Amino acid sequence: MSPPIQTVGVIGAGVIGASWTALFLAKGLKVIVTDPAPGAEAKLRDYLQEYCCAVPNATVAPDICLNNYTFVKDIDPYLGSVDLIQENGPERVDFKRRLFAHLDAKTPPHVLIASSSSGLPSSTFVTECTNKPARILIGHPFNPPHLVPLVEVVPHPGTGKDYVTAAYNFYKSLDKDSVVVNQETPGFIANRLQAAICAEAYSLVSRGVVSAEDLDKTVTSGLGLRWALTGPIMTNTLGGGGDFNHFMDHLGPALKSWLDDMEVNKFDFGSEEKVDDIKKKVNGWTSQVDLKKVEGDRDVLLADLVKGKLGQAGK
Amino acid sequence: MSPPIQTVGVIGAGVIGASWTALFLAKGLKVIVTDPAPGAEAKLRDYLQEYCCAVPNATVAPDICLNNYTFVKDIDPYLGSVDLIQENGPERVDFKRRLFAHLDAKTPPHVLIASSSSGLPSSTFVTECTNKPARILIGHPFNPPHLVPLVEVVPHPGTGKDYVTAAYNFYKSLDKDSVVVNQETPGFIANRLQAAICAEAYSLVSRGVVSAEDLDKTVTSGLGLRWALTGPIMTNTLGGGGDFNHFMDHLGPALKSWLDDMEVNKFDFGSEEKVDDIKKKVNGWTSQVDLKKVEGDRDVLLADLVKGKLGQAGK
Repeated sequence: MSPPIQTVGVIGAGVIGASWTALFLAKGLKVIVTDPAPGAEAKLRDYLQEYCCAVPNATVAPDICLNNYTFVKDIDPYLGSVDLIQENGPERVDFKRRLFAHLDAKTPPHVLIASSSSGLPSSTFVTECTNKPARILIGHPFNPPHLVPLVEVVPHPGTGKDYVTAAYNFYKSLDKDSVVVNQETPGFIANRLQAAICAEAYSLVSRGVVSAEDLDKTVTSGLGLRWALTGPIMTNTLGGGGDFNHFMDHLGPALKSWLDDMEVNKFDFGSEEKVDDIKKKVNGWTSQVDLKKVEGDRDVLLADLVKGKLGQAGK
Repeated sequence: MSPPIQTVGVIGAGVIGASWTALFLAKGLKVIVTDPAPGAEAKLRDYLQEYCCAVPNATVAPDICLNNYTFVKDIDPYLGSVDLIQENGPERVDFKRRLFAHLDAKTPPHVLIASSSSGLPSSTFVTECTNKPARILIGHPFNPPHLVPLVEVVPHPGTGKDYVTAAYNFYKSLDKDSVVVNQETPGFIANRLQAAICAEAYSLVSRGVVSAEDLDKTVTSGLGLRWALTGPIMTNTLGGGGDFNHFMDHLGPALKSWLDDMEVNKFDFGSEEKVDDIKKKVNGWTSQVDLKKVEGDRDVLLADLVKGKLGQAGK
């Protein structure tokens, strides 16, 4: 459909945009980056110096990565020479509406434009695009994108199927794992699943059934270890001796009874008192924790795990 | 309170009991095992030959493990010489009620008795224990216990605090991570969190928002990778730039709006049609998958991950 992607335009170089840039560079692409924030250029350089070397299965050495990007104040003169745009601007519909109208007008019509938006479906902000809105979609990464493979590819109702395929193939070429979300759903997939678990977590901690620290340990030492390797449906299937039907027939009623009890005890986001209480309980734990160390340790094992999975997939 | 635990009595040598036995042996304990099922003794031997070597940070060589257990038809004569009992019988309250009355009567009162029950709170089956029900509690492992560190320690209202501490310390000595569940809650902690995510997963797949395979990929390539390393609450905290309050204030309303949409679209476990549909969609995927390979690959990376975490904890 279009020439191979060699140069990516990155709009916005905050945490997500900078991490995308590290990934693109480490996988051999050239990048044109822009961000209007004061000091953005220097911050990006620092970020790339620290993180280009952390990308699993990188194909380009870190020092070469640093020569393969250009930070520009105004990206307009470069929009004719990029092969794909990854947008990471603020999550405000008015802002994105203006930005996408502009990008759509100034960028050749074959160029795919992906937004990293974690919440706004693209149908809400392509409304003023008159050139080729069919090449616009969501490519929602998971923080940090240079380590976590997941990208949610979410077309709007007018996105062309070829562009969905092109986005899928592009991310795949970077060893990312894309999932295609067939309908624009609030929170897409990942944030809904995350909300489901957080709501019950807040309920259990706020009711004093378990401490915040132990709630997290239930996940990091149990559920999460398995979910890193087999998802909830495959985990059910293996739990049913290789048979999802067996699992549903035998454990479905128990599942239902737990959900009913959860419904009765659900966390009330509307109660200031409850929200203050959960904040207090969480802060009582996290204030004792070295968060920088937690994040650093996480990233080391995350990279090992991603490399281990790539190895098992023969990559 | 009681002498160091050197000999464990294992009641029931199915999948969970056999995996516990592998763990106990690899960590240097002696085990007396019983199981009335035909062929249980030979099955256990096969299991131990395959899995004792897979226990992370084992302290005893696999061939020595095989000399350190005794399979017995009747455990009664040995109940005076075990230091702890780990029970893994069928999940039926009448069965466990009779079994625990018997074990409680025949076992010296200082010996802790832990049940692997994943669903039945121990208050439902200690009702006929007249000797020392205060030493009975749930020690619910996560499959497979020889690899996954999580144990949910759930006392009943009459369990002595010293026994909760003793269980916690015993599991810790085996490099297990215990969480203490302060109230007997249906599904304890892990199964409730699992039910929360599964219910939304079934809803999304059954509504056609995403395929069963992509639903799982959203977890294994994204959420689950992080949850293996930081739990939902710590993940929120890091997502709020190290501040859970910031996360709640800025993302709480979005979370609430996703949960409201999930409530409207929730999966109907009572509808035969919906249950049949999700089975069909899941089977359409899993029937194409080599489940033995999935499980084997999972266990390899699971063991690596557990070892990596033990390493970071200086163990």
